[in-house]
Amino acid sequence: MTMTPINERCDAQGLGDFQRIAVIGGGLMGSSVLRALRARSDQPAMLSVHDICARTRDRLGQFGLADRYCATAASAVAGADLVILAIPVGAFGPVLQAIRAELQPGATITDVGSVKTTVSDTFGHMLPAHVHAIPGHPIAGKEASGPEAGCGQLFHGRWVILTPEQNVDDRALTRLSDFWISLGARVASMSAQKHDSILAMTSHLPHLLAFSMMKTVRDAEGRQGDCTRFSAGGFRDFTRIAGSDALMWRDIFMDNRDNVLAALSQFLVQLSALKSHIEEADSGPLLEMLEHIRESHRQTFTAAVRQPGLVAEPVMTNVPLCPNAQADWSRILSNADDRVA
Amino acid sequence: MTMTPINERCDAQGLGDFQRIAVIGGGLMGSSVLRALRARSDQPAMLSVHDICARTRDRLGQFGLADRYCATAASAVAGADLVILAIPVGAFGPVLQAIRAELQPGATITDVGSVKTTVSDTFGHMLPAHVHAIPGHPIAGKEASGPEAGCGQLFHGRWVILTPEQNVDDRALTRLSDFWISLGARVASMSAQKHDSILAMTSHLPHLLAFSMMKTVRDAEGRQGDCTRFSAGGFRDFTRIAGSDALMWRDIFMDNRDNVLAALSQFLVQLSALKSHIEEADSGPLLEMLEHIRESHRQTFTAAVRQPGLVAEPVMTNVPLCPNAQADWSRILSNADDRVA
Repeated sequence: MTMTPINERCDAQGLGDFQRIAVIGGGLMGSSVLRALRARSDQPAMLSVHDICARTRDRLGQFGLADRYCATAASAVAGADLVILAIPVGAFGPVLQAIRAELQPGATITDVGSVKTTVSDTFGHMLPAHVHAIPGHPIAGKEASGPEAGCGQLFHGRWVILTPEQNVDDRALTRLSDFWISLGARVASMSAQKHDSILAMTSHLPHLLAFSMMKTVRDAEGRQGDCTRFSAGGFRDFTRIAGSDALMWRDIFMDNRDNVLAALSQFLVQLSALKSHIEEADSGPLLEMLEHIRESHRQTFTAAVRQPGLVAEPVMTNVPLCPNAQADWSRILSNADDRVA
Repeated sequence: MTMTPINERCDAQGLGDFQRIAVIGGGLMGSSVLRALRARSDQPAMLSVHDICARTRDRLGQFGLADRYCATAASAVAGADLVILAIPVGAFGPVLQAIRAELQPGATITDVGSVKTTVSDTFGHMLPAHVHAIPGHPIAGKEASGPEAGCGQLFHGRWVILTPEQNVDDRALTRLSDFWISLGARVASMSAQKHDSILAMTSHLPHLLAFSMMKTVRDAEGRQGDCTRFSAGGFRDFTRIAGSDALMWRDIFMDNRDNVLAALSQFLVQLSALKSHIEEADSGPLLEMLEHIRESHRQTFTAAVRQPGLVAEPVMTNVPLCPNAQADWSRILSNADDRVA
């Protein structure tokens, strides 16, 4: 097994030959997987879903997203050759407890959680040796949640990071990679530790800062008013992720605590340097630092855009839609690097 | 003169009866004003523009955005009844020095700078009493700059904040308001101090944090690699404003130093509270705080969407465009609160 990216194809393949797929959790991620599978001509023979919430199961049924809507996780996974956990990482313990006796030999079990070291530990402690346990994380999502928020194209052009243990079966890893690729994703594998360190920096820390910024502005709003009223797209984009699910983010900050705090320390060093330049009115060094950062930004996102095979990202704004919105958006599409600052 | 919003209409009016308009600076903001004016059926009788850069003047000429392309600011403002400074605030001194003798009695002079207290001071010191000096700030922009980046609809649905001194002529203030409204904007007036305090919180501080975040990630990238490669739309949105013009932001941080540092202090209090909860594994209080923030976010942006008369915002992403992008975007438009987290 390799720790470098194992697959960067984004051309659709077969579903990794999985024929009986069970999805545990029918929220944003779980229902997106189901939608993506339902849209395929080569659908698996059996698609089972369990959600702890009866109302969610009903909604999934109304959308027609599965063949079986199971009241227990154990009944959903019985006979499945692929099990996908799309539930809060904090719920893994009881769910694994409930399903482990039902997992058939040779089945693959994976998940979609944002922190991987704790998932690796839990899988290692709780799963029998006769299943292929491969933690995973599709780097895709929204601040919206629930079965209604799902989208069959959520994984298009997105990375799915798998964090297999050293002893994983190579064929099982390839098979799971092919599954995600067939849903439009690109797959890389790395250690759980590396995943958690990277994501702390590029996702968990920005969320922490966005939550803090939103709280700061709302408190200021309470004192003097008129803050958010006169804000622009820059503020909206910057704080968008502060609309994300609180429970999920509580778990992420707890599970990835050391990496998040380390990333925060590094951030505070940079913030402190900029703050000092401003305090001291060090005009020259401040300009130099800002120019350097702007160039970093340009390089980062130019490189991202140049990644081969990357399709348009479903990145959207909370814009109010008015009758001429469609025309506006078409116009804007022809000038794709325009955003209100 | 009132310090509460003086006008919240967004229906197009006449151009405030300005017939000879001079724009100083042909970059993003100046060329956007010119484009908006050129698109009108009731264009002013004379549209003059000056930019210190000959190449920019040539570009403006190629786009056909003005009647006169002036090599000096003084020649551009001669005979104008409205002068709009769309240049870095750091350049106001020499430019006002160059034009003040040419400003005709009764002319209105305004600007588009992001910090207003320093502009008020400069106007007060350098302009003759026989002109109406009214500082202004359209809360609109992009991270792109230059005459090519301009857009005639940049001000549609955006606030323009005017910060008149107490002794300003009411009719001049109304006339300038009508001008901006005719370009699609909404106008509010307030003290320069209040403007600078609000914008420090909702624009200047987020920029400072985005610059710091971008620097942190790039340094981490240099140490371990693969950070930005596996980042998602959340990171991209969060750091988008770090692509903004470095010189402009150097000036903003310098000119609005006290407010920016005060806002930063308030932010650090909130960040520190969240950090403590994470360090101490205070799961309950952390969840409570995140839920409260998420609700604040929802209220803020629901309120923003509900503002009457607000048209679709030209908020856009740097998405790579591929053949099916248009279809993807149309699909996404039908689900307008979806964004990759």
